[in-house]
Amino acid sequence: MKITKEEILKFEKLYRATFINSIAGFKSANLIGTISSEGKTNLAIFNSVIHVGANPPALGFLMRPVSVERHTYENIKKTGSFTINHINKEIYKQAHQTSARYDKDISEFDECGLTAEYSKTISAPYVKQSIVKIGLNYVEEYEIKYNGTIFIIGEIAEIILPEEIIGKDGFINIEDAGTIAISGLDSYHGTKRMSRLLYAKQGVEPDEI
Amino acid sequence: MKITKEEILKFEKLYRATFINSIAGFKSANLIGTISSEGKTNLAIFNSVIHVGANPPALGFLMRPVSVERHTYENIKKTGSFTINHINKEIYKQAHQTSARYDKDISEFDECGLTAEYSKTISAPYVKQSIVKIGLNYVEEYEIKYNGTIFIIGEIAEIILPEEIIGKDGFINIEDAGTIAISGLDSYHGTKRMSRLLYAKQGVEPDEI
Repeated sequence: MKITKEEILKFEKLYRATFINSIAGFKSANLIGTISSEGKTNLAIFNSVIHVGANPPALGFLMRPVSVERHTYENIKKTGSFTINHINKEIYKQAHQTSARYDKDISEFDECGLTAEYSKTISAPYVKQSIVKIGLNYVEEYEIKYNGTIFIIGEIAEIILPEEIIGKDGFINIEDAGTIAISGLDSYHGTKRMSRLLYAKQGVEPDEI
Repeated sequence: MKITKEEILKFEKLYRATFINSIAGFKSANLIGTISSEGKTNLAIFNSVIHVGANPPALGFLMRPVSVERHTYENIKKTGSFTINHINKEIYKQAHQTSARYDKDISEFDECGLTAEYSKTISAPYVKQSIVKIGLNYVEEYEIKYNGTIFIIGEIAEIILPEEIIGKDGFINIEDAGTIAISGLDSYHGTKRMSRLLYAKQGVEPDEI
């Protein structure tokens, strides 16, 4: 069936949010950890983290307008750092719970049963229960005029992960680390690899690595 | 183990690209279809499509600097439209093959065994073999100063999908549609849903829908 923009605009608000949030495909499942200048930790689930560049290494994520998602944004701007922590099969319920509304003086780490862990490189807290963790320094942001969302870019300062999931060619087997994928706003999925394909060349059939 | 930015910068180039491209988590798997003002179709695989907003409905994606990824960018700017087509289990090898270098006058549709299909709403071509297809009009772009990548935003003009994968609450079961996830640059994954969780509330344990 075909659904037009005009029909989407007429959808009931929650139905529309559920519908449109499902349409982009599977999404990364991460917890972003920050700390305020007063030392209060904050943890929030994000499904919009994407690769920005390898050299220098950088990731980005889209956040809702500052009026809605104030704590993560304020902490990043004040301290200059944040962590991205993969959500795995053991902690996806706790991760989901971080999306509830908590006051600024309440830490989602305590409320959701996750443990803050620190490194000397950056001030932002990591999630101890995550198997793959990335520490980043804030680089820049772009406010999307169209709807007030903000695209934030961070440069990778360090990556903490088990050595055994790093392949000989640099590929990180995040499936072996139990990392999951999200669809929509609330659906959590394990994955099963079909194959890795060789670098594509014109006129050559794609082959498996 | 801990790997620092300084160590990452010393990695061999291809190893670093493979490593950093694996670190953001699972990514959406989409084919972006465009057409030139001369009527030549183009099709390219992207793993950076993310949700931008539900009202009005919009998606975004990050593309490499224009010097590298010229065809998709030029077509979008000239015609004002593009399509996002979910990659499913039946076509992931063909989708991967679109990443090979093809001249502008060669269509990836023909070279990779995929079929262009059109709607009256926008000029850009859809991928017939995709089960979930989205037609978008270009809205705006942001060049990321840090590394020259470009974040492009499109407003959804129409969505084409089977009615039976739309749930009562608006959730689209993209797993049932065979939509896959990507990790790294070349790893393709099927998914298996663990659960959907109810809207999180402070002080209430996360429960399944």
